[in-house]
Amino acid sequence: MEYGKTVEQYWQTLNDRDWQAFGALLHEGMVYEIPQTRERVRGKEAYIDFNKTYPGDWTLAIVHLVADQHRAVSQIAFRDDGQEQVGISFFEFKDGLICRITDFWPVAYEPPLRQSRFIERY
Amino acid sequence: MEYGKTVEQYWQTLNDRDWQAFGALLHEGMVYEIPQTRERVRGKEAYIDFNKTYPGDWTLAIVHLVADQHRAVSQIAFRDDGQEQVGISFFEFKDGLICRITDFWPVAYEPPLRQSRFIERY
Repeated sequence: MEYGKTVEQYWQTLNDRDWQAFGALLHEGMVYEIPQTRERVRGKEAYIDFNKTYPGDWTLAIVHLVADQHRAVSQIAFRDDGQEQVGISFFEFKDGLICRITDFWPVAYEPPLRQSRFIERY
Repeated sequence: MEYGKTVEQYWQTLNDRDWQAFGALLHEGMVYEIPQTRERVRGKEAYIDFNKTYPGDWTLAIVHLVADQHRAVSQIAFRDDGQEQVGISFFEFKDGLICRITDFWPVAYEPPLRQSRFIERY
């Protein structure tokens, strides 16, 4: 699970603001996308800048990490100012480096009326 | 990638409304959760009912699938009435059957003001 290790280091170095070690995991031509906002960042330096300038005194922790020979997916808990957000990231690799990250930030919503009677709220 | 195959069959049989084949992939004591709505369904029969009674003439297709020895994650395109939604599901297994599914449904949102100048919209 080599890619799993890379993703662990990715989150650890980001959490530590260790930009040199963080950058060492990224492919020069990497692409970062958030489909929900249709935002895109192209290139390693741009992506480091995006993270460096991200406001707040946030911390993060890995909740789930799944990796195979081609890809990895993580779920993180992103904590800032007493709030916790779920982040889900799909990672792709090239030459052992991260070449694509697709991030999702699912937020709470009110459920629709369900037709099944077997649903509980927690 | 045995669990990957199970998840492929899960989505195929759900898409086909083949409830017998769908149920054969599920552990009796399975738990299904949507953290965004804090909804939970307990047990195989209840979960089949939840899916059987889900309204609409929907179809779905796998976009990404990642699986390791312990877990699997899929991203699907869920299509209903001309609309397409992203669904992300984390799967856990017991005795070769699906024993836990955690579903996320991230929706579009307006991005916050970014401090980095390296962000494009697409």
